[in-house]
Amino acid sequence: MLLYLLGMFGIAAFAVTGVISSGKKDMDLFSVVFLGMVTSLGGGTIRDTVLGVEDVYWVSDTSYLWVAFLSSLAAFFAVRLMEDRQSVFHYADSFGLALFTVVATEKVLNLGFPSTIAITMGVITGIAGGIIRDVLSHRPPLVLGREFYATPAFLGALLLVLLEKNIPSHEFNSIYAVALVFILRVFAIHKGLYYPSWLLYKKR
Amino acid sequence: MLLYLLGMFGIAAFAVTGVISSGKKDMDLFSVVFLGMVTSLGGGTIRDTVLGVEDVYWVSDTSYLWVAFLSSLAAFFAVRLMEDRQSVFHYADSFGLALFTVVATEKVLNLGFPSTIAITMGVITGIAGGIIRDVLSHRPPLVLGREFYATPAFLGALLLVLLEKNIPSHEFNSIYAVALVFILRVFAIHKGLYYPSWLLYKKR
Amino acid sequence: MLLYLLGMFGIAAFAVTGVISSGKKDMDLFSVVFLGMVTSLGGGTIRDTVLGVEDVYWVSDTSYLWVAFLSSLAAFFAVRLMEDRQSVFHYADSFGLALFTVVATEKVLNLGFPSTIAITMGVITGIAGGIIRDVLSHRPPLVLGREFYATPAFLGALLLVLLEKNIPSHEFNSIYAVALVFILRVFAIHKGLYYPSWLLYKKR
Repeated sequence: MLLYLLGMFGIAAFAVTGVISSGKKDMDLFSVVFLGMVTSLGGGTIRDTVLGVEDVYWVSDTSYLWVAFLSSLAAFFAVRLMEDRQSVFHYADSFGLALFTVVATEKVLNLGFPSTIAITMGVITGIAGGIIRDVLSHRPPLVLGREFYATPAFLGALLLVLLEKNIPSHEFNSIYAVALVFILRVFAIHKGLYYPSWLLYKKR
Repeated sequence: MLLYLLGMFGIAAFAVTGVISSGKKDMDLFSVVFLGMVTSLGGGTIRDTVLGVEDVYWVSDTSYLWVAFLSSLAAFFAVRLMEDRQSVFHYADSFGLALFTVVATEKVLNLGFPSTIAITMGVITGIAGGIIRDVLSHRPPLVLGREFYATPAFLGALLLVLLEKNIPSHEFNSIYAVALVFILRVFAIHKGLYYPSWLLYKKR
Repeated sequence: MLLYLLGMFGIAAFAVTGVISSGKKDMDLFSVVFLGMVTSLGGGTIRDTVLGVEDVYWVSDTSYLWVAFLSSLAAFFAVRLMEDRQSVFHYADSFGLALFTVVATEKVLNLGFPSTIAITMGVITGIAGGIIRDVLSHRPPLVLGREFYATPAFLGALLLVLLEKNIPSHEFNSIYAVALVFILRVFAIHKGLYYPSWLLYKKR
């Protein structure tokens, strides 16, 4: 149940980032909503088709589809009132990344897959929606950016797996993992938290 | 049967747009044909893998593959004779959008999925092939453009669902829906048919 | 067994190209590794989901995942020592293209699909990983470039199918096909081996 709610929040958060990022001046309501929906449903769709689950999540439960639709619609109008769209974009993206990574990791664990697969699919699910959004709206993917992005997702997925192995189905396991990803991302954005130089790629 | 023919026409139309759009000066025959095929088969492939149908349509019936191949091949040579490639591109794209959206909506309805899923998959199938084409050929996706694009697809899918609910399997249901999408797109291109200002995204 | 090893080499080769190509100055270890893994596992993932096989290859055998991870990790550090990254990139890409195309064609044939499907999926698998890499790292896809790229993959897949029909399960069939693709690509890069003018796309 908690997992279900967290998933819904993640969809809403990513829908907002899709609307802010893909929106170009004078784009119409329906195109913007379409892009919000693709951003918010894309990551989980890849996860479910790769794992070959019976039905992709939003096909078997259309509530997800409606949440994606209504959040994108709301974001289309709300965006006019936002003072600082870039901040909203970054916070919503960090929140969505945290939620999607953790929910996906938990879901794949529950399906009985080994931890390696759960962590990999968690990171992919968290990052893929944003990559689709960034490719469609012609901006360089956040995962290629200067602040760290893939690392927090990986650490959150790892923490969840460790918690589930040691204190299985403890109520707040997923909350701890979500908090870890979100806090690391916010630190990365605001404090420039980063890697030591020898773990960075040097271009010649 | 009608549906089958319409699907084939859609594949041919999208193959032509793939060839015109992706073709760069001095690209060779086979690369251009490959891109035409990806454009024309991409949307339906996404639909079938997301729905988890037994076999993707062009795997279970290779005629689709051959139509995509031969249309791309023909387009490669025909493109030299075209006076105005951009017009051919836009008409073929509108035609393909109309056909793919309607054929996919009908197909998903026939598989027994609810209307919401049918409409969503119809719109995705109609639009996805063009997005893949535009991303590969480094042009901004048409769906992000100034004229409306996602809306006609949505209205066509909606019309088909309404017709099928009220006059089930009437012979010309799909023809009406295809005509609606195509006509709306042509009006959008030529007459600047568009949304009122409050339904447009304002960038600051 | 030979097929298994060739597949592993292909993953390592594509991981190296992913690291070289996607790496931007100051990108961190984990993001670079993530992109290397997406490049090396992407093509086969598309093949397996489109064919609807029970489990995607790296889900049912996590050794692939580890090879992709460790090769990307090694490439991250090795890249500093490379004198001429562009050459390494082109050779590794040609090698990966050859291996993936042939391994995929063989795998699809062994699953009992007709030759048309095997050749198509072989070409798609060989090319798709590189397309994902190039789209993510904002460079024009190699398949759209001046040298020929899709043709060698097609000829290699065709050769393998012909060999398997006539001298089934001969030990070196796949080696011959891999060599054909690789040699044609190297000739294309170094000698400008190309098509006659009437098989090229002319842009006006």
